Amino acid sequence: MFPSNSVGLVQTQTFTFAQDEPFALESGATLSPVTLAYEAYGRLNADRSNAILVCHALSGGAHAAGYLTPDDAQPGWWDDCIGPGKAFDTDRYFVLCSNVLGSCYGSSGPGSVDLATGQRYGLHFPVVTIGDMVRAQVRLLDHLGIDRLLAVAGGSMGGMQVLEWAAHHSQRVRAAIPIATTARHSPMLIAFSEVGRQAIYADPAWNQGDYYSNGRRPDAGLSVARMVGHITYLSEQSMHEKFGRRLQGRERYGYEFQTEFEIESYLKHNGDKFTRRFDANSYLYVTKALDYFDPAGQHGGSLAAAFEHAADTAFLVISFTSDWLYPSYHSKELVRALTAAGCDVTYLDIESSWGHDAFLVEVETMTRLLGSFLERVRGEV
Amino acid sequence: MFPSNSVGLVQTQTFTFAQDEPFALESGATLSPVTLAYEAYGRLNADRSNAILVCHALSGGAHAAGYLTPDDAQPGWWDDCIGPGKAFDTDRYFVLCSNVLGSCYGSSGPGSVDLATGQRYGLHFPVVTIGDMVRAQVRLLDHLGIDRLLAVAGGSMGGMQVLEWAAHHSQRVRAAIPIATTARHSPMLIAFSEVGRQAIYADPAWNQGDYYSNGRRPDAGLSVARMVGHITYLSEQSMHEKFGRRLQGRERYGYEFQTEFEIESYLKHNGDKFTRRFDANSYLYVTKALDYFDPAGQHGGSLAAAFEHAADTAFLVISFTSDWLYPSYHSKELVRALTAAGCDVTYLDIESSWGHDAFLVEVETMTRLLGSFLERVRGEV
Repeated sequence: MFPSNSVGLVQTQTFTFAQDEPFALESGATLSPVTLAYEAYGRLNADRSNAILVCHALSGGAHAAGYLTPDDAQPGWWDDCIGPGKAFDTDRYFVLCSNVLGSCYGSSGPGSVDLATGQRYGLHFPVVTIGDMVRAQVRLLDHLGIDRLLAVAGGSMGGMQVLEWAAHHSQRVRAAIPIATTARHSPMLIAFSEVGRQAIYADPAWNQGDYYSNGRRPDAGLSVARMVGHITYLSEQSMHEKFGRRLQGRERYGYEFQTEFEIESYLKHNGDKFTRRFDANSYLYVTKALDYFDPAGQHGGSLAAAFEHAADTAFLVISFTSDWLYPSYHSKELVRALTAAGCDVTYLDIESSWGHDAFLVEVETMTRLLGSFLERVRGEV
Repeated sequence: MFPSNSVGLVQTQTFTFAQDEPFALESGATLSPVTLAYEAYGRLNADRSNAILVCHALSGGAHAAGYLTPDDAQPGWWDDCIGPGKAFDTDRYFVLCSNVLGSCYGSSGPGSVDLATGQRYGLHFPVVTIGDMVRAQVRLLDHLGIDRLLAVAGGSMGGMQVLEWAAHHSQRVRAAIPIATTARHSPMLIAFSEVGRQAIYADPAWNQGDYYSNGRRPDAGLSVARMVGHITYLSEQSMHEKFGRRLQGRERYGYEFQTEFEIESYLKHNGDKFTRRFDANSYLYVTKALDYFDPAGQHGGSLAAAFEHAADTAFLVISFTSDWLYPSYHSKELVRALTAAGCDVTYLDIESSWGHDAFLVEVETMTRLLGSFLERVRGEV
């Protein structure tokens, strides 16, 4: 059986819209129909005021908590934080998580079939933005009859969606919790994204995105892309602690081109594993959305101006000291902008050696923080 | 004509040894014969006491200064620092630079022809270490009749060779100048190396290193490897200053999978350019040597013990504040070990925004520093 503080057996659902009127994207392109995969945990209360939307990161999906089958060994990606008595307490809150547009876990993306052609989209799928992802989530809330979220929360790319909600749909969000995120990619972050994409482009099996029917997938390129990503998710300190310069299953150097160091083995294993669960084209689309995200850029460079309508939203901004992908100073800039925009902001820079991954690991601290913050905003509703 | 402070027209020379008795490598393998490409600038004085060996980084070669042809537009890789009146003043010093073993600029490497088979080595070339590279340089000095170097200097992998000289051949080195380097790769650095190698392995044209005669080279993989490297050579600040989030030749996002941001264009350009001048197999061999380098590991983990015979060598250790590939704290650990070993150490952490590339860029500061340090050790000879 499942642990007692688990949401237990869950089911991924889908919501399809824009069958008749195409969904307009930021790029000017349209998409029709649009499907979102989502999961829901806990119960929506009578006045529909206890809903929390949890937004996932680059490689995540709607399956944030619980188990998909009775013998499922692996719970959802944020199971540590979603469940009875956890940070997002499902005894109190109705927690939603929806797979983003462009991804490969049930929502419309490049691997979906284009009804106009009967073929999978591949690169014919339109480029989507964080703004598009969030506007699709707005449609899901309309469908569920939820006017206003108690909170929207997420780490990494999930945090960008949180900021997008606050910047463009603040009337529908009581509280926003952006974690280990940034209000825009610096050139170094764009560079890391682009190297990942170039690794996929370089794989002949990628075939300009047209590989779904030819039996070969660009696994080699996707694996390299994932390895690059993994380096940025760890800190130098956590790598020292986890791997050091230890060799994998050997006493001395082999003087050959095999996996020798534990860190090499870890990267290779994670790169390979990723190819069994993620689609290379989705990797391209989602990283592109990350790079484009720039609310300040939409307001003449002023990040404060991007949040000028969010004065009624309470923010809990969280960063981690050893996160060098989205370093604390990105969050501090965000906090300054939110303060300048007159928002109610709480900021915490959590001491952690786990790097960017800390938002998935520092469960105890997060539970304490999120719990009391949510209690406060809930009391004020 | 060439600038007046240039060493002018130069010629790369070669020295071949171990024709009869094979050269023993750290791995236990042997190599025969061994060729080193090298260049020399300035004049060796009568008592042969003014020789300085300059060691190159990962992608460098023997051509450190001057011009190879009368209409050569591009001087050697450290021309800013080698020449009349420059940091390594060729009016005073006899400056040598030799291409490392395993590289592709004239020294024996995986692209060389194996005399035993008449075929290029490919992966049959033995794995070489920084120790092997330096012992080959020792043979070159023997050949040139130089008993003791006034100094050995180099940045990045060049700095590792400097440390190897000081640790194992200190009686032949009056002064050692390791710049922007480390006494061993942390797991994060091994991770970056390995991702580059994996990008090459992932290219079908790599063909297990056997591609020299089949007309296709693993350029796509090598280019990705180089792009990963380039990210680590810059600092976040220098990327901001050079590229920011500016788009390349366009006003707004294209919402397509093309190069859009300037930083993407820069990386792609440098990746492609690199494939026209470097050999993918050499990239594998040289990065492997970087990862293996660990003088402390050879002495039970004590870096000080590695330098116990170097008390007569004067050290000038230089790091740069924004170098996150080989951060200043690596140099500080080195300085502590050298001090504990009783060495004469001068250490400078130079304020610079150029990241790891600073050792090629911060010419004025380096010229001042190196000039006075060399004057001092020369006076003491």
